[in-house]
Amino acid sequence: MGKGQDTRQEILDTALALVSTEGLEPVSIGKLAQQVGMSKSGLFAHFESKEDLQICVLHEASDRFVRKVLAPALGKPRGEPRLRAFFNNWIDWENGEFPGGCVFHAAAAELDDQPGPVRDVLVEIQRDLFDAIATMVRAGIESGKFRDGLEPEQCSFELLSMLAGYSRLSRLLRMPNAEARARLAFDDFINRISS
Amino acid sequence: MGKGQDTRQEILDTALALVSTEGLEPVSIGKLAQQVGMSKSGLFAHFESKEDLQICVLHEASDRFVRKVLAPALGKPRGEPRLRAFFNNWIDWENGEFPGGCVFHAAAAELDDQPGPVRDVLVEIQRDLFDAIATMVRAGIESGKFRDGLEPEQCSFELLSMLAGYSRLSRLLRMPNAEARARLAFDDFINRISS
Repeated sequence: MGKGQDTRQEILDTALALVSTEGLEPVSIGKLAQQVGMSKSGLFAHFESKEDLQICVLHEASDRFVRKVLAPALGKPRGEPRLRAFFNNWIDWENGEFPGGCVFHAAAAELDDQPGPVRDVLVEIQRDLFDAIATMVRAGIESGKFRDGLEPEQCSFELLSMLAGYSRLSRLLRMPNAEARARLAFDDFINRISS
Repeated sequence: MGKGQDTRQEILDTALALVSTEGLEPVSIGKLAQQVGMSKSGLFAHFESKEDLQICVLHEASDRFVRKVLAPALGKPRGEPRLRAFFNNWIDWENGEFPGGCVFHAAAAELDDQPGPVRDVLVEIQRDLFDAIATMVRAGIESGKFRDGLEPEQCSFELLSMLAGYSRLSRLLRMPNAEARARLAFDDFINRISS
């Protein structure tokens, strides 16, 4: 990696940490420049606008999510082991990847009514995720681990809901047993869908 | 209602609509003054600070939620009828109460890492909601409609998760079958917990 790449990566890391606690909108190029100790014009060498920066932040978060949460799960056997690895990795991601929790939760609430290219990127990432979970469920059905007649997209909805609920209980309500509740719900879910 | 009350109510209604699409943070006293056609100093006669305005907005949203979603459900018989009324009212609330969907979803993602009195008010409202759902489930168990041995708080987590997931699918992903998915998940949930 050249120096330009290193710098860009450092800026993105800082931006992700900021976005996770404050949201996308408040993170301006000026604020970010201050945090990484660069001039505003120095930052503009890497990102041509605030919108460009927001899109890069979402792509970077998505790359990390695939690398840390999804890809390792896809290496596991079909059925429960794969889905459980995905769920565990996601809980780790939610708890530890960013200081303010998953950047996608923050971005989703912020952008849902803000049409434009940044929202479009987020929607694409989230639809890919929805489809990826459905594909894992489908693989479990095809290999006979999960019940015949299950609807993979409905299972994807249920799993995503569980994780959105976990985020609410853990990050907003700070309930000490939030993780235990999510794990119980997941175990129950696996029991229901297993053949 | 005196004129002062009318004006205050009009300001709060406008603020709620704005918050639902843009979030709490971007709604300044100045922006709101412009929307309702008043001077900034006129607005300060009703709310002493932006923080005060945010707290009033959350209390107003909570009062409406209780009036439109929770209270009518509590008038229904224990067990499925009560829980189903609550769920239906919530879907209506999410779909139609505000132009940008439930203000609490927006506020939750915004405030989860922003300690202070506004966050404290939101947490209190959301904990009350969590407890209210658990109480409805408990009433269903006590009257023999729901299974013995169910944990009311775990059921509350599952129902809240479902509704958070619905918000994601409908408002962000704009999936046409989001509501059908949520209703299917709810029916399945009722089947699981019914005795």
